[in-house]
Formats: sequence, structure tokens, C-alpha cells
Amino acid sequence: MAANKRVAVILAGCGVYDGSEIHEASAVLVHLSRGGASVNMFAPNIDQMHVINHLKGEPSEEKRNVLVESARLARGNIQDLSKLGVKDHDAIIVPEPIYPLYQNIHAANLCTWAVQGKDCSVNDQVKAALQAFHGEGKPIGLCCIAPVLAAKVFSGCEVTVGIENDDKYPNTTDTAAAINSLGCKHMSTGVGESHVDEKNKLVSTSAFMCDAPIHEIFDGIGSMVRAVLKLA
Amino acid sequence: MAANKRVAVILAGCGVYDGSEIHEASAVLVHLSRGGASVNMFAPNIDQMHVINHLKGEPSEEKRNVLVESARLARGNIQDLSKLGVKDHDAIIVPEPIYPLYQNIHAANLCTWAVQGKDCSVNDQVKAALQAFHGEGKPIGLCCIAPVLAAKVFSGCEVTVGIENDDKYPNTTDTAAAINSLGCKHMSTGVGESHVDEKNKLVSTSAFMCDAPIHEIFDGIGSMVRAVLKLA
Repeated sequence: MAANKRVAVILAGCGVYDGSEIHEASAVLVHLSRGGASVNMFAPNIDQMHVINHLKGEPSEEKRNVLVESARLARGNIQDLSKLGVKDHDAIIVPEPIYPLYQNIHAANLCTWAVQGKDCSVNDQVKAALQAFHGEGKPIGLCCIAPVLAAKVFSGCEVTVGIENDDKYPNTTDTAAAINSLGCKHMSTGVGESHVDEKNKLVSTSAFMCDAPIHEIFDGIGSMVRAVLKLA
Repeated sequence: MAANKRVAVILAGCGVYDGSEIHEASAVLVHLSRGGASVNMFAPNIDQMHVINHLKGEPSEEKRNVLVESARLARGNIQDLSKLGVKDHDAIIVPEPIYPLYQNIHAANLCTWAVQGKDCSVNDQVKAALQAFHGEGKPIGLCCIAPVLAAKVFSGCEVTVGIENDDKYPNTTDTAAAINSLGCKHMSTGVGESHVDEKNKLVSTSAFMCDAPIHEIFDGIGSMVRAVLKLA
């Protein structure tokens, strides 16, 4: 039983095309709640790179702040990422931070992978948080495209972004190649499951990298969350 | 088995304080997916009454459109509510449309309950949609404060917004009194369950009307969705 584990969740806005994927973030919270964890949410207090009109799939002229929009997912109960203390938490989870392949216009609030691929840079606060948890042997959970954050920060780690050479995972093969080229190891894993890198205490699941019904994505995130709580 | 039921979901923006409650809407979609339903999402193409900064809990000066913001929850796959055809669907579900008791500043995108209580008016398109489904004997599912829509539109119906005189449901007693004063019957029901008004084919669950862990809210919405699919 994983009761009373304290888990930090990093959000990156509110909406698949310019922030955290909403259903992934919600699934993380439901599974953490069922596992008895206490949750603190954080987001970087920075402007979004873009605001995307999700109806038209086009950038709008608006300005929005990542922390303020993330507060929609958190029902107001969220803090500036600069306040995240590794000592106060037993694990950290990052739902999808960016949608990688959206018409070549990308909001990349936690990482510039969307526009720069494997040459991307990771937000300094996010990188520091991941390194701090890793350094203390505390587990890290990642959804969808978020595993590329780990591939950038932890050389030689194992992560999954789905199943390679499978039409249900249209962007997985290219993303896996980029992960491998960073010296990490992509582990093909189905949407309803998660991959555990025991050595690095990294748990990843492909979520919306797969063109799957939403309940399968929900179940895969459940697998990831349970593995994180078990490692914590 | 409820496979292949076609369900319309009405959204009202994206965020608890000025739109649809995100986790309720997501839970509805997960449970519909698990039940094998096909889903079409709709929202009114109108300006939000307010935009609330969810970090500060205060209104901002921005203008946002209900349909455009709802598209964040729908990952872009959503239509103008004016396009909703009752013939194309076997059931309709409305997750929480408004947060009723937020510092006396309320976005009331589907209904003015938040500012006017039982004397509220219901958005004409929403009212027409509910009446059309009801008239054809097709079930209607409602979360959280959304059951007041039914109480306004269907005289004598039974709905739940939680358990009366219970501290875990801080706004339920007053809301239930208003529902009863409209000639309807409030049925005290726990957050993990739903109430079925068999005669009117209305299914309601209290969701965030209860101060409960999010997985209990998720489970209550599951109970509601399964009952709707069974009635469809």
C-alpha cells in the first residue's frame, strides 16, 4: 500500500496544443488519489510560447501565463515551480508537457523538443527538479512525450513513448530514434502499460502518443502512477 | 453491454471557475470510452460571462469564447451547440457547467443559477437540447451543479446534488432546498453513486459538490455514465 506518499506534479498549462494534456493530467490525479498519495502541483511562472486556439488549431494573438493556466487543472491549488522542494516530496510526475508534432507550431513550455528535437533545451527549473529527485533516488513518472525530458537529462536511461513501427503510434518511431541517438534506450511498450527503468527509478507510459480510446490511456497512466508509488 | 451508444456531451468552457470542471468532463469521457460509446462534444458559441484567473481566484480583463475554450477539453474535436441533432444521439451528458458559490463572481455559461439561484434562466440552446432528448425518451446525465438545469426545465423531476445536512457537502443543503422549491425532489445520494429518475430518464451525481478525494468523484461519474448507457 502506497498510502501517504507525497507526490509533486509539474504542469505546463492547460490544453494539448499549448500546455499540459488535460486528460493525462487528470488521470494522474485520479490514480494518485486512489493510491492514497498527497499531491502538490507546480508550474513554471513564465509566458506560454504560444497560445493555440484549440478549435481552429491555429495560434492566437493572446498572451497567457503557464502557471495561471495550469491553475485551471489544479482548481487553484498550485504553486510556482521555483517553490518546489525535493525534501518535501517522495516522487515527481510530469504529464505531457508539449504536443510535439502539431503543424510545426509548438508551445514548448517545459522543453523545446517540439521545435528542436533532440537538440532541445529543457527549462532550467524543470531540469533542476528532475536532477534533484533523481539524485535523491526518488522516482520520476512521465507521460506521452515527457519521457524526452528524461532522455535529455539522464544519459543512458530507459524510457518508452509507445511501440515502434506500429501505425497506432504515428510519432513513436521517430521519437524513439531521437531518444536512442541521445544515448538512451527506447523500450517499446503498449499504451495500457508503463516501462520501469529500475536503475534510474524512471517510469514512463505512452498515453496520447497512441491513437487509442481514452480509457486505455487512463489505464496506462494508472500503471505508471502505481509503479511510481511503489518505488517511492 | 452498452457498446456503440452515441452520446452528446455539452461543455461550457475549460476551468472550474468559469467553465466546465475539467476533471468531471475528463471522467465522463473516460467512462463513456470504457462503455464503448461514441462521443460528440458540443459547446455554445458565446463569450464567457467572465474569465477568472484560477491562480488568484479573481476576474481578469480577458475575453474568451466558450466554444474555443471547450475545444481544449475536446482536443479540438468539438462543434457549435447549434449543430447538435437529437436524432444523431442516444443520450446526452452535461458535466458541471458552473461553479455556483465562488466569491459571488460567477461564470454562468449554460445557466445563470450561479447569480440568480432558482430564478435563473437556462441558455436557450441548452434548454432546447434537454427538452428534445427528454421528449424522445433519451437519457440525460448530469454532474455536480448541472442537475439544477434539469430542475429548471423538467418540473417534478428527481435529481441529486449530494447529501443534505452533511459537512462534506457544504452547498448541497441550500441547493437542494432551491431544487425542492422548484417543485422537484432532491434525493440525497453519496458522491460515489448516482441517482436515477427512471420516469424522466435523468441520472445525476454530486461530484465536486462533495469535498471528496478526486477518485471518489471519478467513481461517482462512472456510476452516472453506466446508468445513462444502460437507459440509452
